[in-house]
Amino acid sequence: MSEENLAAHSGQKKPKGERRPRAETPRGCRDYFGAEVTARRDMLAAITSVYHRYGFDPLETSAVETVEALGKFLPDVDRPNEGVFGWQENEGEGDQTGGGWLALRYDLTAPLARVAAQYRNDLPTPYRRYAFGPVWRNEKPGPGRFRQFYQCDADTVGAASVAADAEICAMLAEALEAAGIERGDYVIKVNNRKVLNGVMEVAGVLDPSDPDKFAHERGIVLRAIDKMDRLGADGVRALLGGGRKDESGDFTKGAGLSDAQAEVVMGFTTARRETGAATLARLRELVGPSAMGSEGVEELAEIAALLAAQGYGPDRIILDPGVVRGLGYYTGPVYEAELTFEILDEKGRKRQFGSVAGGGRYDDLVKRFTGQAVPATGVSIGVDRLLAALAAKGRGAVGAAGPVVVTVMDRDRMADYMAMVGDLRAAGIRAEVYLGNPKQFGNQLKYADKRASPIAVIQGGDEAAKGTVVLKDLILGSQIAQNATLEEWKDRPAQVEVPRSDLVSAVQKMLGGGN
Amino acid sequence: MSEENLAAHSGQKKPKGERRPRAETPRGCRDYFGAEVTARRDMLAAITSVYHRYGFDPLETSAVETVEALGKFLPDVDRPNEGVFGWQENEGEGDQTGGGWLALRYDLTAPLARVAAQYRNDLPTPYRRYAFGPVWRNEKPGPGRFRQFYQCDADTVGAASVAADAEICAMLAEALEAAGIERGDYVIKVNNRKVLNGVMEVAGVLDPSDPDKFAHERGIVLRAIDKMDRLGADGVRALLGGGRKDESGDFTKGAGLSDAQAEVVMGFTTARRETGAATLARLRELVGPSAMGSEGVEELAEIAALLAAQGYGPDRIILDPGVVRGLGYYTGPVYEAELTFEILDEKGRKRQFGSVAGGGRYDDLVKRFTGQAVPATGVSIGVDRLLAALAAKGRGAVGAAGPVVVTVMDRDRMADYMAMVGDLRAAGIRAEVYLGNPKQFGNQLKYADKRASPIAVIQGGDEAAKGTVVLKDLILGSQIAQNATLEEWKDRPAQVEVPRSDLVSAVQKMLGGGN
Repeated sequence: MSEENLAAHSGQKKPKGERRPRAETPRGCRDYFGAEVTARRDMLAAITSVYHRYGFDPLETSAVETVEALGKFLPDVDRPNEGVFGWQENEGEGDQTGGGWLALRYDLTAPLARVAAQYRNDLPTPYRRYAFGPVWRNEKPGPGRFRQFYQCDADTVGAASVAADAEICAMLAEALEAAGIERGDYVIKVNNRKVLNGVMEVAGVLDPSDPDKFAHERGIVLRAIDKMDRLGADGVRALLGGGRKDESGDFTKGAGLSDAQAEVVMGFTTARRETGAATLARLRELVGPSAMGSEGVEELAEIAALLAAQGYGPDRIILDPGVVRGLGYYTGPVYEAELTFEILDEKGRKRQFGSVAGGGRYDDLVKRFTGQAVPATGVSIGVDRLLAALAAKGRGAVGAAGPVVVTVMDRDRMADYMAMVGDLRAAGIRAEVYLGNPKQFGNQLKYADKRASPIAVIQGGDEAAKGTVVLKDLILGSQIAQNATLEEWKDRPAQVEVPRSDLVSAVQKMLGGGN
Repeated sequence: MSEENLAAHSGQKKPKGERRPRAETPRGCRDYFGAEVTARRDMLAAITSVYHRYGFDPLETSAVETVEALGKFLPDVDRPNEGVFGWQENEGEGDQTGGGWLALRYDLTAPLARVAAQYRNDLPTPYRRYAFGPVWRNEKPGPGRFRQFYQCDADTVGAASVAADAEICAMLAEALEAAGIERGDYVIKVNNRKVLNGVMEVAGVLDPSDPDKFAHERGIVLRAIDKMDRLGADGVRALLGGGRKDESGDFTKGAGLSDAQAEVVMGFTTARRETGAATLARLRELVGPSAMGSEGVEELAEIAALLAAQGYGPDRIILDPGVVRGLGYYTGPVYEAELTFEILDEKGRKRQFGSVAGGGRYDDLVKRFTGQAVPATGVSIGVDRLLAALAAKGRGAVGAAGPVVVTVMDRDRMADYMAMVGDLRAAGIRAEVYLGNPKQFGNQLKYADKRASPIAVIQGGDEAAKGTVVLKDLILGSQIAQNATLEEWKDRPAQVEVPRSDLVSAVQKMLGGGN
């Protein structure tokens, strides 16, 4: 019976003429193979072991949240519910939640806020949790910009003290080093939203007596500053004022600040000085009489002092008012980790690798649910960005050793070959029988080559009669493996014939104790 | 400035009177905390280390697939696109895929078939891959039945030989034992769809000359047999015949077999005999003259012989014609792992734990894309089911040791406390400073208790002046920790005062070298 018929038998009738589905990764998604998968797994293990050592406990929520729980906090998005993958629940299922909207999480912070509110009577206070996993953004994909990517977060919920922010910054430095980024290749920049608020108060873009006024304008200011790296000072200035036309001709409306106001804000972004103390002094000048601004500067001073006391100097963590983070929900300290080495971009131009992690204090996210303020702060590491950075430094994924391949010379003796791999596996050696069509021996060797197999085990009729096996060292022999006939193959020096009973010990010896 | 105002400042204006979002896990989803997360991570590591040893390479695809790539292969679902979470892409994005339908994967096999087709020129043949991660089913949740759950799969694509099926069965046994299921607590049952097809040919429910005939009826037969555990023989018989009314009064239409035909099919499901050889003999009788049926029986005989040669006896793997698997796409050998110990169900009745893994040969899934037959076989382990099984056996998740908690007696000396945890962490000890409101010392001790902290470190003004710290053994002192005052606390015998410079060594001693 043909396979066509079998498919029909199992109930999958396919109308004639129906076109075949396309085998395509969805737009903006990626498939990860072999060492790409294990490299990420290893990196997550390294980062979370630091989080664990700092006392954070794991949490895993589902990828799906209700749209109302997720909220409307996506960066760079002005319209509600944009940027997420969402769908409506089936209605009429006799369930009170039928017909509601669900969506894939776009970060790990929104689910944490939901959990902190939902389990607030059971969780310890503060609640320190780490989490990792994919998040999804319904955005236009670009080079290196995917619609599913991994984050690895740690947050402290219920701690108002900026000691919690300082700790997250210190832990971020440790986590980056554990992930393989060498000291000197990264810097963590710390700033405070309250300082920016103070500056905007001074510029007249924020009125403490009516804080709702200018809220929209301030949102534009925030996102404009966050784009400094991409747009440069002139681009940001345009967005602070009347607006900006991008390369494609699209016009983005600006915040409508006067030139004088814009200069005050620009002065803030360039307030970084040689030392932390000098930066703090400059910020004190800038916020002048603003109470909110002064509060922010003193918080920054406290964070700097705590970090200095623990030995985190400017080689690892600095104060930089240029960092504001695009997200709307931050309320106090914000921080960002940048990789400082240069790479070539897609157009072959040198540029700094840039941001791989960021976070800050968001004292209002849990309040959305409960009405009660819950101070919280945390960081998110962009794991896939970090893996790309290591790859750019030539320290990317290294493949696992391939399996020892037991070739099939005589398909009637499959049980014997399976017993061989059984013995090897029992000794902890990665091994497999060739399970493709064994007729062409060359295909078996090509397969072993493609799998980066270190050793091929061969037992034809002659060897079986003698009770021996031939071990072929494929690392030595890889050059000619592509087109070798069995005869050529067997003449190579890098092979030994050993008694079947010595198979495991001989393989171990050839592997040099590795695999 | 109030936090209310801050929220407004950051652009999150909330109209007065808007109701707060509900902090709720989406229906049918779960949140996993602490040891629940690490137990699953450890189990996945144990299973995949077996897969790795057998020569399988990791693959990670995105959670999202195009609906056309996913196909319509959900078990127990007759209507297309039911059972998945899907949504339509935004249209008008100037992209050829705009407006297409996407969905969350419902298993890991459909994405593998897509990958095997898409990368067929680059992958080794056979392609042996493992994968794990969450999958999603848009179904009505029930007790222990979630809409997101983990699978951990291994498949061999491009191997027609039943040696590949035998290997998967052997590997499944090893994987279950690596995951913590003891030998004797599980059995792997092997069957073959071709045998069932042969039986249906004998019964006149399959016409080899017109295989499309009765395809719908055969689908019902398949799903009916798969429900034997739940419905019993009478329920299955009803579904083979006219149909069945369930407890809620809903009627399910049957396959419309005559009583005689139904008896032939029922005879197949009960064809298991004392030994594999006797079962094979009985199956040969049942399939009689059917060529397809005989082919299936001989494949089963070959699998049994290969497994026996490797020492996988009936204590681990048996032939059982009662197992058919519900999925429509299997074309040859099918297998299922059942846990044989009894648990109490939600109504307090004893029952066998049942299926935790299953798989089989699906020679047509890749062909959907390419038009060319690609033989494939593989297994899927239900990781969350397996974790539930271990929990039912009292061998569930064990929490990690809590962190050493450095208490805050004087909030002006936060830098000193942070230096203490810094020293402890540098020695690899899990440690944290209490970051909540330090005013009420009792709260700090309650916190340490809730975190299962082994040691609290205390340094008040007296100790600071002397250059000492007090270490409190919380495992000894946990009984009174709930309501202790500082005075009571300090009188407990299980505490020592040591020089600050001996902090790390004294903590290590108290931990007994652990943590």
